[in-house]
Amino acid sequence: MTGEFALIDQYFKQPAAQQLIAAGQSVLGIGDDCALLDVPPGMRLAVSKDMLIEHRHFFSNVDPQSLGHKTLAVNLSDLAAMGAKPLGCLLGLGLPQVDDAWLSAFSTGFLDLAMASGCPLIGGDTVKTPNDISLSVTVLGYVPRAQPALLRHAAQVFDDIWVSGELGAADLAYRIRAGLFDLSHMPSGQATSEKVNLNKLSANQLMFETAPIDSTLLDQVNRALDWPTPRLQLGQALLGKAHAAVDISDGLLQDLNHILQASHVGAILYEPLLPVSSALLQVSPEVRQHAILSGGEAYELCFTASQSARLQLSEMAQQIGVQLTRIGQIVEAQGISIFDQDNRLIKPHMFGFDHFSKQSS
Amino acid sequence: MTGEFALIDQYFKQPAAQQLIAAGQSVLGIGDDCALLDVPPGMRLAVSKDMLIEHRHFFSNVDPQSLGHKTLAVNLSDLAAMGAKPLGCLLGLGLPQVDDAWLSAFSTGFLDLAMASGCPLIGGDTVKTPNDISLSVTVLGYVPRAQPALLRHAAQVFDDIWVSGELGAADLAYRIRAGLFDLSHMPSGQATSEKVNLNKLSANQLMFETAPIDSTLLDQVNRALDWPTPRLQLGQALLGKAHAAVDISDGLLQDLNHILQASHVGAILYEPLLPVSSALLQVSPEVRQHAILSGGEAYELCFTASQSARLQLSEMAQQIGVQLTRIGQIVEAQGISIFDQDNRLIKPHMFGFDHFSKQSS
Repeated sequence: MTGEFALIDQYFKQPAAQQLIAAGQSVLGIGDDCALLDVPPGMRLAVSKDMLIEHRHFFSNVDPQSLGHKTLAVNLSDLAAMGAKPLGCLLGLGLPQVDDAWLSAFSTGFLDLAMASGCPLIGGDTVKTPNDISLSVTVLGYVPRAQPALLRHAAQVFDDIWVSGELGAADLAYRIRAGLFDLSHMPSGQATSEKVNLNKLSANQLMFETAPIDSTLLDQVNRALDWPTPRLQLGQALLGKAHAAVDISDGLLQDLNHILQASHVGAILYEPLLPVSSALLQVSPEVRQHAILSGGEAYELCFTASQSARLQLSEMAQQIGVQLTRIGQIVEAQGISIFDQDNRLIKPHMFGFDHFSKQSS
Repeated sequence: MTGEFALIDQYFKQPAAQQLIAAGQSVLGIGDDCALLDVPPGMRLAVSKDMLIEHRHFFSNVDPQSLGHKTLAVNLSDLAAMGAKPLGCLLGLGLPQVDDAWLSAFSTGFLDLAMASGCPLIGGDTVKTPNDISLSVTVLGYVPRAQPALLRHAAQVFDDIWVSGELGAADLAYRIRAGLFDLSHMPSGQATSEKVNLNKLSANQLMFETAPIDSTLLDQVNRALDWPTPRLQLGQALLGKAHAAVDISDGLLQDLNHILQASHVGAILYEPLLPVSSALLQVSPEVRQHAILSGGEAYELCFTASQSARLQLSEMAQQIGVQLTRIGQIVEAQGISIFDQDNRLIKPHMFGFDHFSKQSS
């Protein structure tokens, strides 16, 4: 066997087989026309699919190990938003050429997270592409049949709106890397008048060669963008406690809006309550507001729950070690209203990220 | 909602929802973080994923309706090779731009086959790509837990080797379209000394502007390449009757070899027994042999079964209206030996299609 098959074997098949044995779930993994697996009794299958395309979702010079991690993480995040427990995943890997070092690092990042998440690689496809790297993952998981999953249309008027973790860091990293972030936005002391084309530089170069940028900040925001943590444990713990949930991939407002539209309700958010990444304390209020409200790739969960669930949710958050913050309320009037610390209505300019819209700079 | 979301809604969501209702299988389709569905009691999930990349797996000027059909068909073919019944599918659609006419035709081809196969579209992802169309499908199906699926490692020594339908037509179409086929290979009467760059021409132009090519032949081979029929009914009917099975996507020899390697056995094939597409009777013996033995994209099933199953298989084939042909035997000695009509051993030059190998012309 040569070419693509040897490649699959070398980097994915053997470790994946070990993962299967460790997981004890699947009956047949990579190497046949299909993978075969059993959904545990009393459980319902949950399935989701996300693509990541070079130049569009990641830069060509991205660390391949973090890319492997992130390719699976963004998919697991969809399972988390459903309250589903992972069962297995399939990887479609489209590459313009075979690069051993790249494949070794990418597969390590992917399979390490697969193992850590109990989500063994059970199948996929490897193809040669003419130009760009094209990654496509399908994740399979399960939710109990007896309990409602975390559905977008399940939000109820008077529900609290909650968000996990902190917001904004990944968006800031993206804007710095894409050269969309004018460094003059940095508050005095860290500001520079020079607008550097940062997407030509590696993270290391950024940290060490452009002195005005705080290296701890860069480290923190880069980690948020490159190594997102899917909130799987939280998602499962929310079953029976939360109503509607969504993961924040396109921005808080845009993703919350999916819940609102599906549930035919509206929301009030209180800006001072929003959990801001400490990295954002160093940037201007305008950049901060955009990053928190409309910044993509946070992969935190936004969910709604009855007010009577507050104590239960706080206790659960402590138990599993995830920060949960109440940021607003579901209301009858459609749309999203955001109030600042003086209870004045804010009109945010950007409502997230749309693959087929022009991106604002 | 704008951009990608409107696009999904317009072309895929509404018809997909109708398909879900018609299928009565899924509990939640497109529009949430995951699709939710139930695997019927006593059944085991079968899942497979295949990618199709522009310039690599299809030409840019391919009829989008046939591309939509084929994108799903090649995935359903993997379910067929397992004996699985379809449950649902997910589509990853990477497009460089939004083209209404293209999307309308593509979605029609895709959803028509989904409906006809009882395989509703339950989810997916739409992304903008920088250069090429990138298609990725995951199909879900199920097999009975109580009965062995058609696994590659299940072939037994003395098994008959069978193949469905006829071989070679799709490969000839591909070679004509790619300009790999020297028309001087046509037997006298249809031959031309001119090697035309046919991939610059549409199928219609080929048929009407280059007189030496038989238009009925072209029609037949183009249909085989563009509108493959996944052998779903046959696959399910083979459960309990066949041992090992594979679908022929990369060429008879290469795909049969997957069975042989997994089962640690070898095979003897008899060339005069191979079911030749009538389109190939017009081409030279060399081109014919390559197309039958190593030609890809046939999407017929190759399977092995005990000799005692011959009558049962023939009756079943008649019942479901599929041609089945016995082409050889599983033997202990590893490798594939092919004998011609004079019982002389043939050494075929090419053993199929490998995405990361150089393609022979």
